[in-house]
Amino acid sequence: MDKIDTFPIYVEPFHVDFTGHIFLGILGNHLLNAAGNHSHRRGWGIGELNESHHTWVLSRLCIEMEEMPHQYECIQVKTWVEGVMKLFTQRNFAVLRPDGSAYGYARSVWAMIDTATRKPCDLLTLYDGDILNYIVSPEEQPCPIEGHGRFRFREPSLVRTIDTHYSDVDINGHINSIKYIEHILDLFPRTRFERQRIHRFEIAYKTEAYMGDRLSFYIQPTDESLQDSFDIEVRKEGDVVCQSRVIFRDRNPQTDVHA
Amino acid sequence: MDKIDTFPIYVEPFHVDFTGHIFLGILGNHLLNAAGNHSHRRGWGIGELNESHHTWVLSRLCIEMEEMPHQYECIQVKTWVEGVMKLFTQRNFAVLRPDGSAYGYARSVWAMIDTATRKPCDLLTLYDGDILNYIVSPEEQPCPIEGHGRFRFREPSLVRTIDTHYSDVDINGHINSIKYIEHILDLFPRTRFERQRIHRFEIAYKTEAYMGDRLSFYIQPTDESLQDSFDIEVRKEGDVVCQSRVIFRDRNPQTDVHA
Repeated sequence: MDKIDTFPIYVEPFHVDFTGHIFLGILGNHLLNAAGNHSHRRGWGIGELNESHHTWVLSRLCIEMEEMPHQYECIQVKTWVEGVMKLFTQRNFAVLRPDGSAYGYARSVWAMIDTATRKPCDLLTLYDGDILNYIVSPEEQPCPIEGHGRFRFREPSLVRTIDTHYSDVDINGHINSIKYIEHILDLFPRTRFERQRIHRFEIAYKTEAYMGDRLSFYIQPTDESLQDSFDIEVRKEGDVVCQSRVIFRDRNPQTDVHA
Repeated sequence: MDKIDTFPIYVEPFHVDFTGHIFLGILGNHLLNAAGNHSHRRGWGIGELNESHHTWVLSRLCIEMEEMPHQYECIQVKTWVEGVMKLFTQRNFAVLRPDGSAYGYARSVWAMIDTATRKPCDLLTLYDGDILNYIVSPEEQPCPIEGHGRFRFREPSLVRTIDTHYSDVDINGHINSIKYIEHILDLFPRTRFERQRIHRFEIAYKTEAYMGDRLSFYIQPTDESLQDSFDIEVRKEGDVVCQSRVIFRDRNPQTDVHA
């Protein structure tokens, strides 16, 4: 079996924003589905893992796009495992145009936990290290975007507090990884999206939140000298739930005017 | 060309609620996509209509389900036009299990408007009444659920007010039809969904709302004698945006326990 899978994705009309480009959360959802299917085909899907009381936990995700796919396009999501360490795997993605050129790339980090103890497992020994058979080197398949950054929160400002509801939670009763992306992007005004697109989005998941938890969103400029890069920390009762960086870039007035 | 189309749908993991069943809003999205594709194949898609400055506007949607599809299932959505009047079409849907039996049915009502004047058009004369070629009689294809109900708001209680953001709006800058469904279901507590499933959901769209509009949600029992049926009115600054009815029913403890 090839180590890299490619999945076709159709950009549905209700999955695009007011500029006609796919919502980043929806794109993230497509990436996570591609990850799940790639794992499943190799015996490492959460269905198979459940039987031995293990499951994957998404730790970090970063997505960097030169342009966003638009409504009615048939794009492709390519995914592969770049590396495995004792407690984490690094899974990468490419998002391709219909002609095969890259719209952008993504990187993700996953841990494996024991569902009974909730403790991390040693990926190098689980199933006799079978996962090492699926590693693709960066020379074989590059992922030309920077790795996950570091967050240094100084005195971020509280900008919104929300209650979480039925639509926010997944089958595990946790706030859905993708919903955080939606809530974070919802912090920015319409004028920002009219003028700019999301160039890079990073998120690090720290603590699970549950339906009914009240989430507070704190924001700061990544650096005082940067106008278009923001760091967001999501907290519940003092605990850090996740941290995120959103980097905007001006839209290209020739190719990327909004609908 | 057959007058009825059937589309396969895979129930994705991030599209299910904490009980493992598809979110009603996601199912609604699949229905609207099926409607769009069925219209498009017959020359009545919004792409084709745009050229003559017309577009479809969803006026009402009701969905009634005996059970909800669950994660990883491959279901089918069947759609057809049951009737055409001067200003509205009635489009129906069946949601089928992998074995072809019905999970449930849905009914929708659509108007055609002129995009320049925003006024409704006469469907019986547009394109020489071509749409009349696609009507399927109830004898040929039944849709065994009640039609759209009537709402009689007495003194409903204000239960929530929300601001609308980037993720709420569609390519037209309107609050997305599906997002209303999410926001309405988010009014109910976790305990309600643990004990009961949504048996029937109705929504009537009245006035467009836009990103930044503040929406207020008012609720009342449909009838004082009914414990599990609720009418919800969504308002912005006094205008009625949409009206909805949600009817819950106890889960079947044999077949429908939550995950």
